[in-house]
Amino acid sequence: MKVTVKIMLKKGVLDPQGKAITHALGGIGFEGVNDVRQGKILELDLIEGTSEDTIKAMCDKILANPVIEDYEIMIGA
Amino acid sequence: MKVTVKIMLKKGVLDPQGKAITHALGGIGFEGVNDVRQGKILELDLIEGTSEDTIKAMCDKILANPVIEDYEIMIGA
Repeated sequence: MKVTVKIMLKKGVLDPQGKAITHALGGIGFEGVNDVRQGKILELDLIEGTSEDTIKAMCDKILANPVIEDYEIMIGA
Repeated sequence: MKVTVKIMLKKGVLDPQGKAITHALGGIGFEGVNDVRQGKILELDLIEGTSEDTIKAMCDKILANPVIEDYEIMIGA
């Protein structure tokens, strides 16, 4: 089964990579970029029948840092 | 306007980060992880009326590396 996990920094947590991209876009002439936030996307190929609880445990233990990151699990996406 | 850009390594391009995550999950007892591929997600806040062509140009010039990466643009997502 295919599972996609989207991991973004929580709102309010500074995102220096996103800021660097914002400035880089401005620097090469793209105007009108108010803000960029960068996150991670993980596409997992798991054996059939893996429960959502197991996937949540993976996220909490190793995939994401729940102190500063939010994650979203999309099963079958 | 909010635009989300999803950037993944092309199929066939080795993904050492994804492999490391696959092994790390196995190492802490999560079985049944066949494969993991890691990508980037960018949430852009652009001024209203930015055309899709402009966003494609941003991707080709600076956000993605079209030689090894595929990107997907989701407007309003």
